[in-house]
Amino acid sequence: MEKRLGTGTPVDETIANRLLGRRSLLRGGLAAAGIGAGLEAARADESIGDNAPPWMKKPGRTFSAYGVPAKSQESVQRTFGAPPGRPGTGVTQTPLQLLEGTITPSGLHFERHHNGVPEIDPAQHQLVIHGLVKRPLAFSVDALKRYPMETRIHFVECSGNSGGYSAPQPRQASAGAMNGLISCSEWTGVRLSTLLGEAEVASGARWIVAEGADAAAMSRSVPIEKCLDDAMVAMFQNGEAIRPEQGYPMRLLLPGWEGNMHVKWLHRLKVTDAPVDARDETSHYTELMPDGKARQYMFLQGVKSIILKPSFGLNIQGPGLYEVSGLAWSGAGRIAKVDVSTDGGRTWLAAALGEPVLSKALTRFRLPWQWDGRPATLLSRATDDSGDSQPTRTAWLAQYAAGQFYHYNGICGWGVEADGMVKNVYA
Amino acid sequence: MEKRLGTGTPVDETIANRLLGRRSLLRGGLAAAGIGAGLEAARADESIGDNAPPWMKKPGRTFSAYGVPAKSQESVQRTFGAPPGRPGTGVTQTPLQLLEGTITPSGLHFERHHNGVPEIDPAQHQLVIHGLVKRPLAFSVDALKRYPMETRIHFVECSGNSGGYSAPQPRQASAGAMNGLISCSEWTGVRLSTLLGEAEVASGARWIVAEGADAAAMSRSVPIEKCLDDAMVAMFQNGEAIRPEQGYPMRLLLPGWEGNMHVKWLHRLKVTDAPVDARDETSHYTELMPDGKARQYMFLQGVKSIILKPSFGLNIQGPGLYEVSGLAWSGAGRIAKVDVSTDGGRTWLAAALGEPVLSKALTRFRLPWQWDGRPATLLSRATDDSGDSQPTRTAWLAQYAAGQFYHYNGICGWGVEADGMVKNVYA
Repeated sequence: MEKRLGTGTPVDETIANRLLGRRSLLRGGLAAAGIGAGLEAARADESIGDNAPPWMKKPGRTFSAYGVPAKSQESVQRTFGAPPGRPGTGVTQTPLQLLEGTITPSGLHFERHHNGVPEIDPAQHQLVIHGLVKRPLAFSVDALKRYPMETRIHFVECSGNSGGYSAPQPRQASAGAMNGLISCSEWTGVRLSTLLGEAEVASGARWIVAEGADAAAMSRSVPIEKCLDDAMVAMFQNGEAIRPEQGYPMRLLLPGWEGNMHVKWLHRLKVTDAPVDARDETSHYTELMPDGKARQYMFLQGVKSIILKPSFGLNIQGPGLYEVSGLAWSGAGRIAKVDVSTDGGRTWLAAALGEPVLSKALTRFRLPWQWDGRPATLLSRATDDSGDSQPTRTAWLAQYAAGQFYHYNGICGWGVEADGMVKNVYA
Repeated sequence: MEKRLGTGTPVDETIANRLLGRRSLLRGGLAAAGIGAGLEAARADESIGDNAPPWMKKPGRTFSAYGVPAKSQESVQRTFGAPPGRPGTGVTQTPLQLLEGTITPSGLHFERHHNGVPEIDPAQHQLVIHGLVKRPLAFSVDALKRYPMETRIHFVECSGNSGGYSAPQPRQASAGAMNGLISCSEWTGVRLSTLLGEAEVASGARWIVAEGADAAAMSRSVPIEKCLDDAMVAMFQNGEAIRPEQGYPMRLLLPGWEGNMHVKWLHRLKVTDAPVDARDETSHYTELMPDGKARQYMFLQGVKSIILKPSFGLNIQGPGLYEVSGLAWSGAGRIAKVDVSTDGGRTWLAAALGEPVLSKALTRFRLPWQWDGRPATLLSRATDDSGDSQPTRTAWLAQYAAGQFYHYNGICGWGVEADGMVKNVYA
């Protein structure tokens, strides 16, 4: 298909300031659609060898045992969110708008700690399974590594992610600062059901309380059905040992559920008959309803999407062809569709989804857009394979009391002004 | 399915020193198969909270802008291969046996440099397309980033990978030191056909010569059919800007073809009517045949696999249940099947393949193995979806003259001795 690009066929003039279906783009050709003309195209000749850049004129640096990003990429960092009150607790966000694809580099995975990152000696760490089991067991790291493993790509999202959209006025901040409490990795570990099989769950078991070996002893109650489904004790992240900020030497992974439950530095699983109303499931991570009551134990991260190109801080350089691109995900399963609008929701066009579209993982969506230089409002709306779609921000807010910000999954928007500036807008 | 593990049903006694089909494992239960008993199982009680490890008794360290692996993982490094003769040229290998899953951490992607790693200023870097084109073009990094992108997971493998198996005696070295000139990443960039469409390829165009901006000006000739197929100018690796060792700010990606052609620090593509017989396609990267002639322009990386657990350096700790696990791949497409033998090839059993099985990407295979403590010879044999299978080492060697080591894809083996020591063996 791509072979037919650039044939120079004149482009349909009606596509100004319009999203382009994949077919129209192929018919029209990129050059004809304006991107070639808008870029720094120059005549090239053979002399490039003689006029070689300075780095071709001397040997480069030697090999390294463990590589790091280019020096010129040093500004690609996690952003620091305001810590909610105490030292050792807070967040850093993944700079989503500076990244591409779907895998988050492990060094840029978002952080949420409740009392800092413990430095654990893996030789002394144990995972204990006890409570309502016939055989209480303790697993060393080496012991766990003998068990059959699984590898799966999943996102982890803090339930407070995108909570800033509950503010009355749109906050002018980057896509990552607004929505970067989500990251996606290839995780490898032992299915929790395998370990529970070893311990032999006793009758009456309904919940499992997972506790981390950090100084906050962060604890959450998990229904046993999830533990026996796709839950994993993850030990590897993107191929190597899980990073300290993500729970080295092991964390609980509960695909599609709120990040706080994916207990890091996991060292204890107590099988119980009821949830324990731990600190982080009473003081935090609940949903405040209009009647003043709080809904507890709401685990699922809803269907959601965010446009990253363009977005705040990545302004547009004049009219022409651009790619609108972003990420979509759902805690319920696969992304079925992402619709994009450039006119504030009046018209929508389906974006292309990057293959493979995986369950409970980030999906990259892309759509060519011919910008004519007039103000535009860009929105994305994801639908998952259970049929759920993102609500508008207004509809999302109407479900809760003022101040509720957990589990925001309303539609997000960016306004493009005539000078190419991109701003956060409520639409 | 997994819910039925650990039920304590006595295991069939005939499975000693046998690979276990998934069904037998589920019937028997892990505990009964010996893994539970063989591990450090201990009684656990509520006192773990009081007897908390030292890292739970003080706040952990604070947030960081860019994370790094745990200190206790410092030995997980690339291994340094012997450089072939000159400073600035050589390799480091990915420590495959210390990793899990299929994505290679970018810091551990293998290196092959011909004159070191150039430090390129991305603001000055240009990709020039010239030669047999109607519109010679130069693309800045920023210009390229405006084009429609694609994200795909692919391996890159040096054609010299596993060349050590051509030695008369098996070399006693780790799986990574033997086979670690392969890595797998999620790459994002612009399809080369898109850029060639912009430049408008002229009639008579048959090859494209790709040149890197390193001090070796590493060059390779690529048939234009591949350039118009799945070739990509990659700018992102595992979500972030491509690493310096992998070609920052951009490299050519030719999925499934030998690594040397994936020209790093790509700055020039000259469209020609014939290959140019560049240094690295005459002095290296050819196949020496029994009649003394060398086959040139052999691009495809064949179907291949390697067992990583167990492997040299990862000895077995006594009889019991283990997971045999490794990686398989093919430059021709998807892996269809990986057969594993523990008796030197007398009998084989198909391993489970990790989903999703992607084309021209690493596939993880896994199979439970009940080791009875007697000597065993482990082999893996991959088959791809074109029907190609790995030859034996003997059959592979018979195709070439002595000394030929490029494109080794014969079956690899590990011998497990009665004391659990694992050695490289030819079988």
